Amino acid sequence: MVQKYGGTSVANADRIRNVAECIAATHSSGCEVVVVVSAMGHTTDDLLHLAREVSDNDHPRELDMLLTAGERVAMALCAMALRDLGVPAVSLTGSQAGILTTAAHGAAEIVGIRSSRVRESLSEGRVVIVAGFQGVDPDSKEVTTLGRGGSDATAVALAADLEADECEIYTDVDGVFTADPRVVPNARKIDEITYEEMLELATGGARVLMPRAVEFGRRYSIPIHVRSSFHGRPGTLVKEDTMEEPIVRGVAHDTSEAKITIHAVPDNPGVAAAIFEPLAEAGVNVDMIVQNVSHDGVTDISFTVPNRQIDLARHVSNDAADDVGALRVDVDDNIAKVSLVGAGMKTESGVAAKMFRVLSSHNINIEMLSTSLIRISCVVRGEEVESAVRGLHEAFAVGSDQETVR
Amino acid sequence: MVQKYGGTSVANADRIRNVAECIAATHSSGCEVVVVVSAMGHTTDDLLHLAREVSDNDHPRELDMLLTAGERVAMALCAMALRDLGVPAVSLTGSQAGILTTAAHGAAEIVGIRSSRVRESLSEGRVVIVAGFQGVDPDSKEVTTLGRGGSDATAVALAADLEADECEIYTDVDGVFTADPRVVPNARKIDEITYEEMLELATGGARVLMPRAVEFGRRYSIPIHVRSSFHGRPGTLVKEDTMEEPIVRGVAHDTSEAKITIHAVPDNPGVAAAIFEPLAEAGVNVDMIVQNVSHDGVTDISFTVPNRQIDLARHVSNDAADDVGALRVDVDDNIAKVSLVGAGMKTESGVAAKMFRVLSSHNINIEMLSTSLIRISCVVRGEEVESAVRGLHEAFAVGSDQETVR
Repeated sequence: MVQKYGGTSVANADRIRNVAECIAATHSSGCEVVVVVSAMGHTTDDLLHLAREVSDNDHPRELDMLLTAGERVAMALCAMALRDLGVPAVSLTGSQAGILTTAAHGAAEIVGIRSSRVRESLSEGRVVIVAGFQGVDPDSKEVTTLGRGGSDATAVALAADLEADECEIYTDVDGVFTADPRVVPNARKIDEITYEEMLELATGGARVLMPRAVEFGRRYSIPIHVRSSFHGRPGTLVKEDTMEEPIVRGVAHDTSEAKITIHAVPDNPGVAAAIFEPLAEAGVNVDMIVQNVSHDGVTDISFTVPNRQIDLARHVSNDAADDVGALRVDVDDNIAKVSLVGAGMKTESGVAAKMFRVLSSHNINIEMLSTSLIRISCVVRGEEVESAVRGLHEAFAVGSDQETVR
Repeated sequence: MVQKYGGTSVANADRIRNVAECIAATHSSGCEVVVVVSAMGHTTDDLLHLAREVSDNDHPRELDMLLTAGERVAMALCAMALRDLGVPAVSLTGSQAGILTTAAHGAAEIVGIRSSRVRESLSEGRVVIVAGFQGVDPDSKEVTTLGRGGSDATAVALAADLEADECEIYTDVDGVFTADPRVVPNARKIDEITYEEMLELATGGARVLMPRAVEFGRRYSIPIHVRSSFHGRPGTLVKEDTMEEPIVRGVAHDTSEAKITIHAVPDNPGVAAAIFEPLAEAGVNVDMIVQNVSHDGVTDISFTVPNRQIDLARHVSNDAADDVGALRVDVDDNIAKVSLVGAGMKTESGVAAKMFRVLSSHNINIEMLSTSLIRISCVVRGEEVESAVRGLHEAFAVGSDQETVR
């Protein structure tokens, strides 16, 4: 059994002792337990703040060295609390636990697990506490971090390597909801959800689980149980198949992106590559891309990028626009994305049409649109997104028994 | 050149940037520079406090894991600040820098240095920032710490291994003083002092340099320059020989010890071993030991131990007293030790006699007494120690040109 506890669950000494009691209960039931912990509470933000106080520049290698101190503190304290309960426990850094990653500081990807030290400690009857979010590049021996939410990926990857029955992700909410409960007060907890749906919800803005962790779960068929660390009730089980396949499983929204539009791009072959290749090389995470039919040999290309990369994206886009002879670049940071996700969409028609009707009935204009097999995402004005989420959640009766597409 | 910066010197972002400027100046003069840093300000105490909040018990392995997060933060921030100044810099943990230690968590000793990674970075023109106070046990691969002040030992050991010309210890005072300036306002900074004298002053209570660091310096003949990180004036140079050999180089005092007396110990062979072996096995650091001539076949044995080990020492002493058939054990935590240190004592007689006369003229009773070739230490009442230090400093004219033993 692999359990992961987030920063809120280990935010102070009391909570760490609570977490230790949960772990001890699992251990006493005869289970082998590996625990992945995040840094305590706001530690990572505090360390980032400290780094900004010292330096305005990017130092990815040293930033990773700095941030990995956070989980180190949390894991050592958890191990102490467990030992106080009579449970033999040992903490291991990402490097010690054999979490091998790419060399990309701040956004490394797990490429393998060398879990001999974890397995050895387990075979000695110990609970192993592993620092989440961090790993080591096996070539350079440099310490790396996986990016925000990376502890989820650490947990699921370890569960896959250790062939665990399940990976439990303990968090400060009850599970995955049909919409953000802060926006939709009657949003419901989802009992079961497929990997694909969870992936679409997570990339659509649901913050409860990191997309890469879901991908690991899917690739290695590890059920992921997202549940509360404050009570024992079941949360949301992410797995291959679910009992029911509703048309809309949930409504996600995301206000962390900005829209860039390049106007009057000559409609020649190779133009899209000339724009998006430099963006990829600069490390800009482009999400949605929309290009309309051309008029008079020119077209407009719009795409969304994370708000935090807006300056970088603007700079690269301006250069690219000059290169291809486009008219100008506009940046709009007052947008939001709202997504409907559900495996039932694969076989159900009319979902998009109903979505557009609902948005229009709320006087909400759709600025960009993209779809996948099981998702429809619309970009709307930032101030309209909450009304869009509430309207869609109600119109599609998400999470209720009488779902309808009519 | 190896430079060590203590916690006060890197206590916040501003000071870290100041330290970076000092290092950059040394680097731009063409010197290869290795920098050893302690944790920022009160970080280590804060982490210890956190550990006590979580657990009342001892978890040495996990405590080391916890505490080593402190230097990790400081070294990463220092490397960032240096890179901002255009100086190529890289930070390394104790383990990455090859600081090999014994397995004794919390009090590990450096047993070797495997400095290939440090040398490699130096040869690439980088400044190497090394986490002080920490190392790794090469057998178990476990992370260890060297105990309080261990960063000094890290610095001098690295200087020895790298065959550096000098090891600079930057601190928040101007150097080593003839007495604690908070007690003796006209105490003077010592320009040069021998390793032996520094060792005696450090074990006598001068906190500015860790005894083990001085031992390393002596063993490998590395001059140690103790100096201020707030200005560029020279501090105190600790080395083999000094220009002058005064009778009293300095007066040290220590209020961190307690006295234990075992009364009416049968004066048989093996009794001392029966008392001090269990204390050593329990890890109690016994400092002074005094045993007087016996009367009626019994004698009293007194010794001093660190205040923080008082409960442990009392417990072990009670058992030992029972075993040897002694009368009872008294513990007195209101004592202090005052020491005169000077290489000139080797050849000068009458120093002890004058010391006793000075103390008696201040109505101060001597409770215990021990001497080495270059030191005389007296245990006195705790409340009398400051007056003892002032009286001795004045009577021996310590640090002035007209020193006298008359």
